[in-house]
Formats: sequence, structure tokens, C-alpha cells
Amino acid sequence: MKNTITVGLLGLGTVGSGVIEILNDHKESIQHKTGSQVTIKSVLVNDLNKPRELPGETTQLTDRYEDITRDPEIDVVVEVMGGIDHTLSILLEAIEHGKHIVTANKDLMAQHGAELFAASQKTGCDIYYEASVAGGIPIIRSIIDGLSSDRIRKMMGIVNGTTNYIMTKMTQDGTDFDSVLKEAQELGFAEADPTADVDGLDAARKMTILSILGFSMPFNLEDVEVKGIRGLSLSDIKYAEELGYTIKLIGIAENDHTGVSVSVEPTLLPSTHPLSSVHNEFNAVYVYGDAVGETMFYGPGAGKLPTATAVVSDLIAVIKNIRLGTSGKAYVQPQFSKQVKTKKEQLTKKYIRLHVLDQPGMLMEMTTIFAQYDISFDQIIQRASDQDKERELIMITHQVSEEDFAKAQSELQELSSVRRVDSIFRVEGGE
Amino acid sequence: MKNTITVGLLGLGTVGSGVIEILNDHKESIQHKTGSQVTIKSVLVNDLNKPRELPGETTQLTDRYEDITRDPEIDVVVEVMGGIDHTLSILLEAIEHGKHIVTANKDLMAQHGAELFAASQKTGCDIYYEASVAGGIPIIRSIIDGLSSDRIRKMMGIVNGTTNYIMTKMTQDGTDFDSVLKEAQELGFAEADPTADVDGLDAARKMTILSILGFSMPFNLEDVEVKGIRGLSLSDIKYAEELGYTIKLIGIAENDHTGVSVSVEPTLLPSTHPLSSVHNEFNAVYVYGDAVGETMFYGPGAGKLPTATAVVSDLIAVIKNIRLGTSGKAYVQPQFSKQVKTKKEQLTKKYIRLHVLDQPGMLMEMTTIFAQYDISFDQIIQRASDQDKERELIMITHQVSEEDFAKAQSELQELSSVRRVDSIFRVEGGE
Repeated sequence: MKNTITVGLLGLGTVGSGVIEILNDHKESIQHKTGSQVTIKSVLVNDLNKPRELPGETTQLTDRYEDITRDPEIDVVVEVMGGIDHTLSILLEAIEHGKHIVTANKDLMAQHGAELFAASQKTGCDIYYEASVAGGIPIIRSIIDGLSSDRIRKMMGIVNGTTNYIMTKMTQDGTDFDSVLKEAQELGFAEADPTADVDGLDAARKMTILSILGFSMPFNLEDVEVKGIRGLSLSDIKYAEELGYTIKLIGIAENDHTGVSVSVEPTLLPSTHPLSSVHNEFNAVYVYGDAVGETMFYGPGAGKLPTATAVVSDLIAVIKNIRLGTSGKAYVQPQFSKQVKTKKEQLTKKYIRLHVLDQPGMLMEMTTIFAQYDISFDQIIQRASDQDKERELIMITHQVSEEDFAKAQSELQELSSVRRVDSIFRVEGGE
Repeated sequence: MKNTITVGLLGLGTVGSGVIEILNDHKESIQHKTGSQVTIKSVLVNDLNKPRELPGETTQLTDRYEDITRDPEIDVVVEVMGGIDHTLSILLEAIEHGKHIVTANKDLMAQHGAELFAASQKTGCDIYYEASVAGGIPIIRSIIDGLSSDRIRKMMGIVNGTTNYIMTKMTQDGTDFDSVLKEAQELGFAEADPTADVDGLDAARKMTILSILGFSMPFNLEDVEVKGIRGLSLSDIKYAEELGYTIKLIGIAENDHTGVSVSVEPTLLPSTHPLSSVHNEFNAVYVYGDAVGETMFYGPGAGKLPTATAVVSDLIAVIKNIRLGTSGKAYVQPQFSKQVKTKKEQLTKKYIRLHVLDQPGMLMEMTTIFAQYDISFDQIIQRASDQDKERELIMITHQVSEEDFAKAQSELQELSSVRRVDSIFRVEGGE
């Protein structure tokens, strides 16, 4: 049995230095758990001349990835550099050379997971990627192992900390989207270019990974319907509250007997739902299984040490497999072919807020359109508007197909009495 | 490799029939995940003549445990019959005959876990026991695997569904303890003899198991300070709310650099704490790690199918180990020797409610005692009492040692101005 495991680290940014910190701090405990010492032999960096604290006396820095992928001494490659295409080719080369992989890269796993798994199956290598979804929350192994005997029906995730921070601040302080985004950028909770977070792409990648695992079907990022939180208004947050709901950016993956739908969109959740109490930059994944019922996994979705914890826990699993001779056995091919629901088949409740002219027959015109598409309502609020002769209407529907709702919406917008449709969101809970 | 795994089931009560149901319902998925078919060959029952639906055509019922422990065809023994001493001897015999064990038995694991592990190490058998703590929540494997790279500092658990149900009803409906207990018994949420739940013993067993795993030290049930919820009053629930807290029966296991304390007691939690939103019969375990920070695992703590899900997920892990030839390797001996804090070393905040005579010098007498023991206060409420000339005092202290507080309390009770001390609880959060 190998008593020393040699690691090559790709990337020495925030997470990379967190990995080194945890490996140093928890040296004894890791040796106790795995029976092995862990040595970081080489670290790939962009700029060799940048001054940095070296992680250990025997650790060398390199700017050539081949020094890691082709080094016969290296057992495990830990990838925390990010990026997609170039990183994929590096990892494929590492796998070809028999290296096991631990990665925190959701972009890569969401887009090229299947390719990496296929390559690793050929050479009997492990790929672990717990840190790619919800940072420090061990959600991937909970789905793979903890709930392995169950049939998962639904996963709802607050899997993007930046947007949850923004929405929490908007809700609690009544500050508008642009101001909170600016503040979040200053505090380091949001990137200078917040697109991937704010427009939902980051969350969509994580939901792709969770859906593949939870439903055992080969999904792609393209299967996810994505709508971000840009332009979310304080009015909607207030009306939602009045109606008993909290607005969150939720990734929802559902599997009933007829098919699957996966989406990321601002969603009204009942304020009593466990996810409604997940504030600030925290993440949580709510999982509903046929047998287990409701479970939720809560914790930090990002950050240096939480993410590094997930990476090192994966590294420990990989080392155990090396010592036990069970490498490359953890991955199970998706069991089912993919069945994505059409928009006609997708049934959800909707929240709609619109400005209408206060004129006779207005409500009748609208209700006639809704009735045509069998759309009925759970709650309706009508309020005075700041414009004279206008009214603000807020409605929550019962379940309706996405297709029918889209048709009703476009007919609605043709009505002369409808000044504008302000917002439309998904609603969860109730009938 | 074995393509069929043969199981002996000890017990055919609620959880036992749940296990059979899940194995039948998820046959294909389990075969996909493990590469094996699972057959239940024999089931141990008390009464062979009781009419029941047989779980499968090839399954036989027996009232002799040796038919299972000594059957060379049986690979795994699944224990869902409960009990301690007799069950221990049966499982030890099964292990001696090379059977792997999956058990849902917290009483047994809290008291005799070490003995079972020692025996299983000799014969290279697995012991899995996820269902023994918090039913359907995969908390044990989250601690063992998911957080394996971290140093766990604190675990707080709502790990008894019965008491959480009772306390939720008391809080939400304002119904007193005895009435809610009676209602819970009628609804099947509480046993006819509720002692183990209401007096905290059940929670203490679970906290013993979590503490062994989380801190890697060999704790016993006797190391846990236990105080139940019997006689919890509505007044305390109301005052707690007024002070910004929610009262829950919480198991708390803490490990700072100087030692460990493990307790189960009614505790005031800040109402904003994630555990404060865990209602009814739900369970949750909050884990604080040095690196990961705050995480929480939420779900059903009991019930037929949730518990059976945990049992069958364990069975899947055992089967994977059998097929991979890695049985008996999952268990890691506690790394550290046990360091339990003395009462002098245990620092907590306290809530105290008492009735005092409204007479001059009363408050001075009391504060003199508290000052002697360096006890200072975070919040104080004084209210009129229903008795003339009496006042009700509610105080929350800053951190104080258990020993000092006990001394102050007994001196307090000697004062002529103190009519009675109504209640004392632990307080979490703040300084």
C-alpha cells in the first residue's frame, strides 16, 4: 500500500491556497483517516515571478501543465484553476496518464462531465467534484450515497450565493437591485462582471450536475430553462410578502412519471418553506424523495475554506480508494435516457403583475383570455397605481402549462387596456 | 463477484416492512447501482402464527435467530428489531459467522458500538448504522465523508422528533405540555411510555453516536448531561419569545481546545438560528467546522420509509463493499482519548425565571450573590406576578461556569426574598 500520496495542484488562487492550508492544518487527522501522508509536489501557476508563500519545502511551482500531467510520481491532480476548454484538455491528459482527479469546476463538470467520466473509466481513475455544487455542503455524496435507496422526485436549490445575498438585502433592507449589486461588488460577494451569477448561468450549471446525479439521466446545460434576477423590483418582493411568499432564485429539477423539467428562475416560495429562511450568501439544497420525504442540506456555498474543505474531503475519498484498490469504481453511468418535458407538459403556478387602465370591461377582457386557456386564480390583488386612471393588478394562478400561459400572456399584451406586464414569476407550493 | 446478495432481516415491525417495501420498489435501481440482486432469505419474528404478508416467495419466517446468524448463505444481517443486550449477543454471533451488519438501533450503538466495531474488525465485516441517528437524514456519512477534511467544533441537534413535535405545538398553539403529550400519543407521535423521548435519553444516545464520530473520541452515554422537557411551562416559551429566542430540546456537543462537553437540554436559541425553524416532528443537525463554518442537515427523523431509506442506503454501501472487496475497511478507530470538561470548565449562558417578594433590598441581596460568582446579565425582565407582593424575574446571564451557576443558584434559594426558582435553561448565541 502507498504510504505517501503525491498531489499536483492546478491553480493557486483563493481555493488553491485554502486546500494547502487545510492539508497543513489537518495533517495528522488526514493521516489517521487514510493511513497516508499527502504531499503537494507541484503547483501550476500563471506567473512564476509573482511573489508568494510556498506551500511546503518540497513543493515546486511551474507554469507548464505537463510538469504535472506527465509526472509519474503524481497520483492525484487537484484542479482549482477554473476555465473550460483548456482545463478539459489538461485533465484529459492527466487522466490518460493515470492521474485521479479532484475538481471544484462546475462549468467544466456541467458541460464536459460525461467526457471526463468516459475517459476516467478507461484508465480506472477517480473523478470527484463535490466542491462544484454548493461549496461546503456535501450534497453530491448525499445524493449518491445517502439517498441511494430512494427515488428522488424534486430538487430545489439556492445554489448561487451572490444572487441570494442580493435578494436577501433587497428583501430585508428595501434597497433596489442596482444599489445592492454595487454594494455586493464592493464587499467581494459579487464579481466585477456579475453576468454568470445574476443571469442564472452559474446556478444552471449546478442544477445540471444535480439533475444528472439525482435522476440518473444524461442532461446538458441546454436542458435547463434559465431566467436571472436582473431588474427584479422591490414591488414584487413586497407583494410576494403580502401574499405569504418569499422570492428566491431557485433551481428546480422535477421528475414525475412523465418526464423531467429543470429550470432556474426567480420563484415565489411560501414563507414557511425551509428554503425561505436561507439568507445572505448561504446555499441550501432541498431534496424530496419518494420514501424519505423532505430533506434539506444547508451551508456555505462558496468561500476559500468551505470550498477547500469539500476539495480535501474528496481527496481523502480518492486516497482511500487508492489504498483499497477501488479507484475508478464510484462512477455509475446514468441509468435512464433523458426525458425532458415540453412547454405544454410543464405545469406551474404563476405570479403576474401588470398595469391596466381603469376602464369598464377591462377585467372582463382579461378574464376571457385566461378562461380560454383554462387559467384560474388562487389570489388577486388590485391596487391604485401612481399613474392616475391606472391600476396595478397582481395575480397568482393555479397550475397552468408553460405553453398556455405564454399564449395567454401575448394575447394579454395586445389588449388596449393592458399598459404593461411588469413581471412574471414561478410560484411553488399549494395547488 | 457475487451477483446475488442474501439478506437476513431481524424484525418485521414498521421499519422492517419499510425495508422490504423499498427493496421491492427500487429493485432495478439497486441492481443498477450495485450490480447485484438482493434477496431477503429469512426474517426473524416473535410470533410465527401472526398472519402477515410475506415479503417474497422465497422468504421464510423464523423465530430462531440462529437460522439467520448461522446460515452460510446469508451475507448481510439487517437489524431493525430494537433492544439492547439480547440484540447485541445476536449481532456478535452474526459477526462471528462473517455477516455484515446494517442496524437502525441507536440504543445499541450508543452503548455497545465500540464492542461491535472491535468484533467486526476481527472478521473483516462492515457495520453501518446511518438510520440510528436522525432517521432519513444522511448525517453520519456527511460527518464521516463529507466533512472528513475539517475539524468539527460544535454539533447541535434536534434529534428527537417527539419532543420537537410537542414543543412546536406548545409554541404555536399555546397548549400546555400535558395536553400536547396526550394529543401526540393519540396521533402516534409519542409512545405510550414517553420516558425515553421526553426525558432526553433518546436524544442523548444519538448525541453519543455523533460525538464519537464528530470528535473521534470514545464517548459513552454517561458522558452526556441530560435534562428533558417534562414540565416545560408556557410562560418560559412566551418569555423566551419576548427576549428573541425559541426553546428547543437541543443536543449540544462542543469541542474547543481544552475539552469536550456533550449535553441534551431545553435550550433558548436565537429565533434567527436555522434550528429555530425546524418544526413539528422534523429533525436537523447543525454542524460547525473550523473550515466549513455553518452547515445544517434537515429531514424526517423517524417514520417507516425515511428510516428504511437510510437502512437500504447502508445496505447498498455494504453490497458495494462486498463486490469491491473492501468490506470492514470503513471503520476508523477514534483518534483521540476522551477529554470531558468538568462543570467548572463548562461555560454557558443561562436563562433563569424566579418568583421573588417585592420588598426593599431584594434585588441587592440577589445581585450580591451573582456578583460573588462573577455572573453578569445580558437581559432582565421584571413583571407583576399573579400573587400580590410577588414579582416574576426573568434573567439571561452572560457566560458562566456550570459549577459557579449551581452554587449561586443554591445560595439564591436560601434567600427569604426568593419564593421559588421556576426554571433554568441553557441559552445559545451571543456572548
